[in-house]
Formats: sequence, C-alpha cells, structure tokens
Amino acid sequence: MRSVLPRAVRDLSGELARWPGIGPKTAKRLAIHLLRQPRRAVARVADTLKSLHANVTLCTQCYNLAEQEICTICSDELRRREVLCVVESPLDVEAIEQAGSYDGRYHVLGGVLSPLEGIDAEQLTLQELFARLKREPISELILGLNPTVEGEATARYIVQALPDESIAITRLGRGLPTGGDIEFADATTLAAAFSGRTTLK
Amino acid sequence: MRSVLPRAVRDLSGELARWPGIGPKTAKRLAIHLLRQPRRAVARVADTLKSLHANVTLCTQCYNLAEQEICTICSDELRRREVLCVVESPLDVEAIEQAGSYDGRYHVLGGVLSPLEGIDAEQLTLQELFARLKREPISELILGLNPTVEGEATARYIVQALPDESIAITRLGRGLPTGGDIEFADATTLAAAFSGRTTLK
Repeated sequence: MRSVLPRAVRDLSGELARWPGIGPKTAKRLAIHLLRQPRRAVARVADTLKSLHANVTLCTQCYNLAEQEICTICSDELRRREVLCVVESPLDVEAIEQAGSYDGRYHVLGGVLSPLEGIDAEQLTLQELFARLKREPISELILGLNPTVEGEATARYIVQALPDESIAITRLGRGLPTGGDIEFADATTLAAAFSGRTTLK
Repeated sequence: MRSVLPRAVRDLSGELARWPGIGPKTAKRLAIHLLRQPRRAVARVADTLKSLHANVTLCTQCYNLAEQEICTICSDELRRREVLCVVESPLDVEAIEQAGSYDGRYHVLGGVLSPLEGIDAEQLTLQELFARLKREPISELILGLNPTVEGEATARYIVQALPDESIAITRLGRGLPTGGDIEFADATTLAAAFSGRTTLK
C-alpha cells in the first residue's frame, strides 16, 4: 500500500513502528502528533534519546541500571545485606521499589533462561550471582522471577546450582497470577507476594 | 512514588509518557527497550525526530502534509478535478488513499469545529475551501468527516455556508459506524462509505 505522507513522516513512523506495542497506524498517528508539537519540544525528545546510552551504565554489583559504578540501592547502607532478591530486569526493581514492600538488595539477571530465544546461562548474570552468594553475607535469596515457564525454569536452575544449604531460597508466591508480569503488578499484589513467599529449599 | 531508574531513563520515559496513548509504565518499558538497542539505532530515531519539522510543509492548495509547495496528489494530473473530498486530517487522506477507492482531490481542514476545545472556523481551512470552490471547476463536494458530533457540526456548517446550488454536496455514508474513526476503518468499510454516500443538498 502506497503512502502519501511526506518522507520525513514515513521515516519517523517507520522507526516508531519498530518499538514494542506500537503498530503502523499508531506510529503514523504519533508522527503527526509530533509534527503538531513545537519544534523545540520535539528536539528535546531527540536530545534525550541521544544522551540515553551515554548516561546509563550497569551497576557492577547488582547489574541494575545505574548512573555510576555502584547503583543507588547497592550504595544505600540502610538496605539489608542478608536478603537478596533476584529479578529479571530493571523494570522489576522499579516496580518492587515503587510498591515499597522490600528493604533488601537486588540482583538483576538481565533476562531469563529461554532456549527458544537462544538465551542460556552465559548471557545472564548467573555466575556473578553465585559469586556474590559466596562473597556476601546473604542468608536468604528471594527469587523474584516472573511466574512464566522461563521464569520457573530459571528458578529451578538457580536452586539446583546452589548446594550451599546455609542460604534459604524462597520465591515470591501468592499474589502473582500465573502468566502475569511483575512489572505490571499493583502494590498490593506485590506486597502479598513478598509476605506470602514460599520456601523452595 | 520514587523511581530508582537513572535520570536519563526517567527523562526519556517522561517525554514518551506525554505522547498520546502511552502511559507511564509503557513509557518506561519503551525507554528500557531503547537502552537495549544499539546506540546508532537510537541516534537514527533522534535524527529523524530532529529533521521532522524541517522537511514537512503544508500543501498551499489542499493543506495536506507535503514536501513541496504543492503535494503529490494536487500535482497529479490524473486525479479528477471535479470531485473534492473534505477531510479533517492528513491521516484521513492516508487511510482513504491506502484503501484506493477514490480518485478525486482533497481538502484538509486541519481539524473540526469544536467549541469545547476552542476550535472555531477561523482555525480551520474553511475560508480556503470556499475560495477553492469558487475558483476550481468542482461539481461535487464529498464531506469525508468523522461521524462524530464535531464532524457532523462541521458538515452542517459547510452545507449552510454554501448557497451555490451548482455544487452537489454529499457525505460519506454507509460503512462508517457512528463514533468511529476514518483513520482506523478498513478498506472495505471505506469503499462501502464511498459508494454509499448520500446527497445532503
């Protein structure tokens, strides 16, 4: 289907249509919306995009997104050192922090095991997790992984790889619906999941 | 709710959350998605945004988006000159063109009359439309306005403002559900609307 929109609008909507959850019609609508905004406002979005990578790094301790070598959570002396919550992505940390029901630390895997998508243990920060468990005084490991097939498989992998019986391994339990997504859970659901976590080992 | 995301991610998701249809959680998800893309790909989006306004203008004849003074449709000698379709926005032109059931020309109003949003006749290209009807050999004016309260009011306004009985005024009829949106109609619905248009005057 030929488009009669100017090339600049088509180029932009083509880029936006690559973003997850944005279809070609929504992309065109967004492009036209931006065209109606003041030029300066659109330039500001462009600048924000350009400086995105330069100002974000990964925390060398927990692999969460950070502005400096150590993220704000890892450098917070008030956070409990003996509890570590393993999550898939920085958005999970964000959701749990906004719910405010957890005061320990995190370890961000950067994904979950997924043979279908070609993601194996090497591509996640699993070795870094095991090294932390040896190095840090952690007594409980909370598996805060999404209740999906991949999340469960990753949880099983971690349980099997940890023969050290001095560390309790729990997982977030009641409250998270199967097939759901931590990132979109509300605060109450997340609080219930934290308080109702079940012991795996 | 405090965010633990780096400022660059928050800045970007704050910008994206201003876009229509994008909520704060989707905006964060998009920002993290972009962070995972190669820096060069994100810079390309930024460049596209920056050059958007510079490379788009309005056609001086029909007020559709254009790259030059006259848009590709107005400069197409094969398009029928005696039929003019009045639409609200360039996205409506795009949808009708992609359906391929119309070979006349367009006039883009740039909106519809909406007292609630403070949009009156002065802000639309209505005077320019009436001037065209005097100047050009138009025998039929098709009102391709959305079947909403504002679209209907704008159609009535045009009908009342045109005492010239030599021009037939029709509107797109069957096929468009009340409260719907031309831009999202499929090709069959648009074709039915073109063939089933009803005479107003």
